[in-house]
Amino acid sequence: MNHVFNSTALNMSYVSDNVAGASPEIIDALAQCNTGQVNPYGNDDGTARIEKKLSDIFERPVSVFLVNSGSAANALGLSVLTPPWGHVLCHPDSHIYNDECAAPEVFNPGSKLITVAGESTKISPARLREKLTHKLGDVHSTQPATLSITQATETGSVYNLDELQVLKDICRSSNLKMQMDGARFANALVSLNCTPAEMSWKSGIDILSFGATKNGALSAEAVILFDQGMATEMGYRRKRSGHLTSKMRFLSAQIDAYLSDDLWLKNAAQANNMAKRLEQGLAGIHGIELLGETQTNIIFCKMSAKTIDHLYGQGFTFYANRWGKDIVRLVTSFATTEQDVDALIRAAKNSSA
Amino acid sequence: MNHVFNSTALNMSYVSDNVAGASPEIIDALAQCNTGQVNPYGNDDGTARIEKKLSDIFERPVSVFLVNSGSAANALGLSVLTPPWGHVLCHPDSHIYNDECAAPEVFNPGSKLITVAGESTKISPARLREKLTHKLGDVHSTQPATLSITQATETGSVYNLDELQVLKDICRSSNLKMQMDGARFANALVSLNCTPAEMSWKSGIDILSFGATKNGALSAEAVILFDQGMATEMGYRRKRSGHLTSKMRFLSAQIDAYLSDDLWLKNAAQANNMAKRLEQGLAGIHGIELLGETQTNIIFCKMSAKTIDHLYGQGFTFYANRWGKDIVRLVTSFATTEQDVDALIRAAKNSSA
Amino acid sequence: MNHVFNSTALNMSYVSDNVAGASPEIIDALAQCNTGQVNPYGNDDGTARIEKKLSDIFERPVSVFLVNSGSAANALGLSVLTPPWGHVLCHPDSHIYNDECAAPEVFNPGSKLITVAGESTKISPARLREKLTHKLGDVHSTQPATLSITQATETGSVYNLDELQVLKDICRSSNLKMQMDGARFANALVSLNCTPAEMSWKSGIDILSFGATKNGALSAEAVILFDQGMATEMGYRRKRSGHLTSKMRFLSAQIDAYLSDDLWLKNAAQANNMAKRLEQGLAGIHGIELLGETQTNIIFCKMSAKTIDHLYGQGFTFYANRWGKDIVRLVTSFATTEQDVDALIRAAKNSSA
Amino acid sequence: MNHVFNSTALNMSYVSDNVAGASPEIIDALAQCNTGQVNPYGNDDGTARIEKKLSDIFERPVSVFLVNSGSAANALGLSVLTPPWGHVLCHPDSHIYNDECAAPEVFNPGSKLITVAGESTKISPARLREKLTHKLGDVHSTQPATLSITQATETGSVYNLDELQVLKDICRSSNLKMQMDGARFANALVSLNCTPAEMSWKSGIDILSFGATKNGALSAEAVILFDQGMATEMGYRRKRSGHLTSKMRFLSAQIDAYLSDDLWLKNAAQANNMAKRLEQGLAGIHGIELLGETQTNIIFCKMSAKTIDHLYGQGFTFYANRWGKDIVRLVTSFATTEQDVDALIRAAKNSSA
Repeated sequence: MNHVFNSTALNMSYVSDNVAGASPEIIDALAQCNTGQVNPYGNDDGTARIEKKLSDIFERPVSVFLVNSGSAANALGLSVLTPPWGHVLCHPDSHIYNDECAAPEVFNPGSKLITVAGESTKISPARLREKLTHKLGDVHSTQPATLSITQATETGSVYNLDELQVLKDICRSSNLKMQMDGARFANALVSLNCTPAEMSWKSGIDILSFGATKNGALSAEAVILFDQGMATEMGYRRKRSGHLTSKMRFLSAQIDAYLSDDLWLKNAAQANNMAKRLEQGLAGIHGIELLGETQTNIIFCKMSAKTIDHLYGQGFTFYANRWGKDIVRLVTSFATTEQDVDALIRAAKNSSA
Repeated sequence: MNHVFNSTALNMSYVSDNVAGASPEIIDALAQCNTGQVNPYGNDDGTARIEKKLSDIFERPVSVFLVNSGSAANALGLSVLTPPWGHVLCHPDSHIYNDECAAPEVFNPGSKLITVAGESTKISPARLREKLTHKLGDVHSTQPATLSITQATETGSVYNLDELQVLKDICRSSNLKMQMDGARFANALVSLNCTPAEMSWKSGIDILSFGATKNGALSAEAVILFDQGMATEMGYRRKRSGHLTSKMRFLSAQIDAYLSDDLWLKNAAQANNMAKRLEQGLAGIHGIELLGETQTNIIFCKMSAKTIDHLYGQGFTFYANRWGKDIVRLVTSFATTEQDVDALIRAAKNSSA
Repeated sequence: MNHVFNSTALNMSYVSDNVAGASPEIIDALAQCNTGQVNPYGNDDGTARIEKKLSDIFERPVSVFLVNSGSAANALGLSVLTPPWGHVLCHPDSHIYNDECAAPEVFNPGSKLITVAGESTKISPARLREKLTHKLGDVHSTQPATLSITQATETGSVYNLDELQVLKDICRSSNLKMQMDGARFANALVSLNCTPAEMSWKSGIDILSFGATKNGALSAEAVILFDQGMATEMGYRRKRSGHLTSKMRFLSAQIDAYLSDDLWLKNAAQANNMAKRLEQGLAGIHGIELLGETQTNIIFCKMSAKTIDHLYGQGFTFYANRWGKDIVRLVTSFATTEQDVDALIRAAKNSSA
Repeated sequence: MNHVFNSTALNMSYVSDNVAGASPEIIDALAQCNTGQVNPYGNDDGTARIEKKLSDIFERPVSVFLVNSGSAANALGLSVLTPPWGHVLCHPDSHIYNDECAAPEVFNPGSKLITVAGESTKISPARLREKLTHKLGDVHSTQPATLSITQATETGSVYNLDELQVLKDICRSSNLKMQMDGARFANALVSLNCTPAEMSWKSGIDILSFGATKNGALSAEAVILFDQGMATEMGYRRKRSGHLTSKMRFLSAQIDAYLSDDLWLKNAAQANNMAKRLEQGLAGIHGIELLGETQTNIIFCKMSAKTIDHLYGQGFTFYANRWGKDIVRLVTSFATTEQDVDALIRAAKNSSA
């Protein structure tokens, strides 16, 4: 058996970071934990160890609930923070609003998502304040309960700590809870170079979806509760949604390996660095216009239909014309290599020549 | 890395089949599929291959939806078959009624589960007929929509093909759909020595939860739709419940290995055979009374408090006194060996001596 | 226009108390409140007056939410007391379990009703205690949250104050909330000859469905919260279920008239007395066997198929053979008169002669 | 008892049409139907008569479900037309989106409302077409299922028959169902001077909330199904939401009187005419600017803060500054008289003098 990931072939897909497989270290961890009998449903030592590790990393006792998907993590977190007659405020381009087939509403029937726009897929504080004055205390309307933000955002941008603080202040003064969709938490963390605590509970976050799948796990996300008083409720909510895994050791082992030896940070740095390298390579090419700064592992740029077709013809894949005419999105991952990136740059150069 | 499962230590837990790990072949399959980039969300060749394999095994084109837990598989299947104002008929000791924290009701808000008792955890046809006359067409009551049966049952018993046919006839004449919780489908199949088709759609089953987790997978269950017309709806339902995995290859790979080289049947046979061996060993011991015939991998017997304590003292674990005073449940799994079983028999003998 | 209710024809239906119309005083109140403009949605003086009146009657400040149906009143009350992963304990013959098409589950998706049997449609304290030990704190099961009792019960029996106290003690010690379905609250109150406070919050009731429809209103039920802290939540819950009436004055006027000049108590006494008169009349008839004591306005008795047919032939209507062979249920109402009752007794005598 | 509505005092509130009471004819009908015993739950002759009358009026056999509130009527209708993974397209200023505390989502858990803007509170066909191309068939998104339009709209404007036809064509070609919130159906009908059939099913409407409360009833709305095949499902849905009234005769009597002698059309004409008279009176006043044409019973205009305050001081009530600075909304009703209107015009003239 050969664990060297993807050794010979080029990674030619930039469609999403979920086209990658898993880190070999995480695959290995599955095999290593596959010895003997252990208690099911998270009552095993390995799962307890995860909670301890994450408490250390976040500098505070946390409760951790492992699940298999980011949609489940988000929907579970939001359901604990929001009463059935409440609403979640989120960006119109957020994953929870657009890409989860109403999972937040399924997990919390009757609650609503209300969108608050803003540049770079980030909530505008001014618009948020405005929304919070709407029909307050009026029984004819659901009530604002929770702010959901994505870090890094769906377009790869990042809230800096000051921006998070502004949102926290608004939420605290309006009695709103805060949830963070951290499907790309590690990518944002590496980008900001701050501590996990600073980017989460110190910024007011009550519940975090701590993603691992996009960054090297097979299928593992941790819902992290910074207020452990919510843990009892979350236990029932996870089970009733079918997200309590019996052989939990295999979820825990993924997260354990993910957190060991800074694998999560190394993987995120690799993805971010490759995006940066790609950005720099594309910057010099005539006819390609970069759209905004690349803060994590997602690049938006403009290129001609001819260039797009040429790249497709070479075997590269990515989304084009989905966010506007000639707009191309390129996503790198932990598995993207320098050779991968350089091959794409070269092909782009050739096509625009 | 050593894949020989559990080689040195005895398996001393008979609490449940989910205390076991995974078959080494399935762990290996994860590593083997971890090469290169593939389409996410089930749009990969590996997932397509699973659907083909299961269509062959079930002798009919089927639609397959992979999920991570049996509760999810059951709740999804039932939600497709039952209108929101309908109810599911099930045994009072069924997993869906007792052990899923109302997942079927969460996935289909407003629907109910109505219990129909019967010997050996099997639905009594007479009682089922009786329930089906209750408030039919009366808007003050939810309406019978779906029969859910578990095969093998929660206590390890098995509906034979004749019994299934009786239930099918009742359901067809009352316009009821049929769902099968097959968390231990393989154990039942091996016990009956019939074909998968006979034990499912030929017996009227519309949707099957085809379990793999208890029988050697890490975390993988297949919802099998025998009517492919339900597939579109199921696609949305899986996603909105957070059970659509992005890196689906790792779920598909588990099922692929599970179905390859008859691993699923071999594993089930091993579990069943070890239960049979254990039953035979216990049968000869003074003071131990076997309760019913062991048809799959679950044994119920009566033993004295002294014997129970002695076994606990030796390090064996299992449920006692949960189904009645001095009643003991012993569950074997694919990972249980002859040495394991013989050690338990020996200890039981000693303690009753 | 003639307000004298039902002056000439006999009331020959004993099917239910809801075949009656409304008390003339309540119809009059609608006309009287139909003057000028008033604030909608319960922000009118009339509605405020109701809350005051009910606070006086119950000897304690209460919050009142008027709705149009008993099912709505029950489902709303239960939804405030029960978390989504909780269950309501109720009698298997209760209205909420049998006759509301799962409204409690619709209003609180994912919650369950768990039945606790007992004689005379009353919860058995011993069985309740037993149920409360089942899977406590186990995430695989919904958790006991609320006890729902019906007073008077669906078969017309009544919990006496001692019996209520026993249930209260169990609930308090197990941290359960208590809801009372008081569709026939007045009938029970008149039967027990106690105070409304004694029969409700002093007996541990947290939320009461205070019925008026069966006892003389057109369509008006009051959800009474003994803990006013629940009122904010209830406001949103009522609206989101479509049960907030815009022209609330017409609901309030019904309850106002119902409570004025002891109309509610007089109506209930009339219904109960007519049932008693009927019981006494039937008692002397050969071939008719009374089943249990008549405590409110519902009589159960046994009569021959011949007698039943004879009465049907005379034009009388009632349920027969629904609760067993030859078992007849007879329900009186506030509109039942002595002539009505005597006509039925006469006919029964003739038929059994 | 004096049934002459509101005879002496001026109607000085223009806040909403729901501050009015009920038509005396409708109050009378309640008293008249209050004789003898009738079958409950809509199994009475009076309710059957309503269905017949509405079938005549709409020139087609219809199924009718009476409920007590417009929110219930809308939410029930939408829940029948929309699968749980579907969404309803509606105007951002629609009642269902803004004023029902998420009732549509409560009645159909997991479904979403997606807004489509447009001038005059009317859906823009171009924008609708655009929305219908979004993530079609993609499991990550709920799917377009139903278009909901309000006629007359929440601001009193009216879709003409041509506009309805355009929407119908779009819906038919995209396989969308159509629901109409007709809380002010009569006002729109009188305004367009067309037939009820033309304004409903001939324009593609599948289910209509036929409002009566705002136009003279106490509390009565009819959900009208133009496809009677949906009736069975609707029966269960109405009951499980607590909206099946036991003494249905009192709801039916309201609708019966409403439809008799063209009361519904006369009432709507009165409201519309009074709005027109008010519009004309305000048009000539210096400093008052009318905003758009008044098509039904709602006027929007601009007046100075001084004028607003003056009118408030005189005892008039209405919403100001809610839709923008100095913007005033004035709503007339069936109960508004010429004296009422002239008094307001006079006061406005004086204040602007």
